[in-house]
Amino acid sequence: MKTILSTQNKYIKELVSLKDKSRQRKKSGLFLIEGVREVSLALKGNYTIKSILFYPELFSFEALTDLIGEFKIEVTEISKEVYEKLAYRSTTEGIIAVAEIKNHDISNLTLTTKTPLILVAEAPEKPGNIGALLRTADAANIDAVIIANPKTDLYNPNIIRSSVGCVFTNNIATGSTEAIIAFLKTNNINIYSAILQESVAYHTQDFTKPTAIVVGTEATGLSEDWRVNATQNIIIPMQGEIDSMNVSVAAGIIIFEAKRQRQFK
Amino acid sequence: MKTILSTQNKYIKELVSLKDKSRQRKKSGLFLIEGVREVSLALKGNYTIKSILFYPELFSFEALTDLIGEFKIEVTEISKEVYEKLAYRSTTEGIIAVAEIKNHDISNLTLTTKTPLILVAEAPEKPGNIGALLRTADAANIDAVIIANPKTDLYNPNIIRSSVGCVFTNNIATGSTEAIIAFLKTNNINIYSAILQESVAYHTQDFTKPTAIVVGTEATGLSEDWRVNATQNIIIPMQGEIDSMNVSVAAGIIIFEAKRQRQFK
Repeated sequence: MKTILSTQNKYIKELVSLKDKSRQRKKSGLFLIEGVREVSLALKGNYTIKSILFYPELFSFEALTDLIGEFKIEVTEISKEVYEKLAYRSTTEGIIAVAEIKNHDISNLTLTTKTPLILVAEAPEKPGNIGALLRTADAANIDAVIIANPKTDLYNPNIIRSSVGCVFTNNIATGSTEAIIAFLKTNNINIYSAILQESVAYHTQDFTKPTAIVVGTEATGLSEDWRVNATQNIIIPMQGEIDSMNVSVAAGIIIFEAKRQRQFK
Repeated sequence: MKTILSTQNKYIKELVSLKDKSRQRKKSGLFLIEGVREVSLALKGNYTIKSILFYPELFSFEALTDLIGEFKIEVTEISKEVYEKLAYRSTTEGIIAVAEIKNHDISNLTLTTKTPLILVAEAPEKPGNIGALLRTADAANIDAVIIANPKTDLYNPNIIRSSVGCVFTNNIATGSTEAIIAFLKTNNINIYSAILQESVAYHTQDFTKPTAIVVGTEATGLSEDWRVNATQNIIIPMQGEIDSMNVSVAAGIIIFEAKRQRQFK
């Protein structure tokens, strides 16, 4: 087992740039995972973990062996200083993994049911919102989360954190709005776009059929393509003073109406 | 009209402490409101506004006169430096109001329907979550939002911001869990506590009757009193890898199931 004590170590410097820089993640095809639950979910989600670094005062070698199980992963003991340099969160679990990025291109997306329930989010920006969407998708156990025209890379540490690691276990695809609409049409999936124009209340629709629920950002809504190609535009009736709802709350309301109609099966 | 140009002005220093310190808000009974929409919603929500400060390069005197209308409010022109000292947000609208805190004690809560729909949140801490809960409550136009054992004062600038000002127009009450349970029982309102033990799925319940939906924090859930006094404990069935959902998303799902049952009336 290797030991790294210095924050000046070349490998550690490379890992810091994986944490901080989306560009570096893209270039190397690697990213960092922090926390026991998150590493465990990444293993469950079939991510290839190249290496684990641990600070033994916070995370013991025994706990590490338990976590890794049968997987062959290089482990490195690090000092407190190195750990603090790599850690993103304030809560400290003493474990950081280096994992390989997956290819999420829509062309790779496979669905295992004839009546899928899918969430599409167009150009979400705030990592916290993306994390909340992923948590809702996880709780509903939907068939896929598709991110159209992504603005933020999925392996942003704040998305990993705010998704509580379920970014690794959700079935996620990304692509251009055009490619995603083509995919949905090819697969005969009804498109329900959350758009005010020519819309009906969400709960009047039959979501037991193959369903994609499509939401935009609070600031700009959905692009014109989603209106033109919608099976039906839907809205959540709003009866208050401010005509706005958090996007992850709105998505949750519509997804769970679909789940209710499907009797949570 | 007064003009204040110096950040060293005694009144400005007092206002800065209203922005930054909950204690100072409690002591003086005053708080700050930033932004046009927010001030406008506070007026609509019958808040007493004592004074408005504006920076004319960002917000004109004419716009101010339009906003104030018939209300008698003292206005003060301020410099850029003073405005920046008082402003909490990075988006700058050039207007800050000084308003009187309302008494939200549960003993003052009045309901105008025999079949109210109420959201109770116990000890929510994160201003962003409280703001999202208030936005959902506004969109659903529910009869009251009750905060049990509040940990954060309602006039925290981050709650005002994240609620987009609907903190002023929602019917909000606060009190101890004990006092709130007494209020709900006295008014024959069914208590649906989001608690796992002895629970049923939320959508099996009849929310057309007088209904209080009670949610706790993600970290600690609800206190024992809500379990003991519940008409029925409810859960959202979760079928994923991580057994958790954002509290404002969960509240939105249950509230809008109640709205659906009530046919959005």
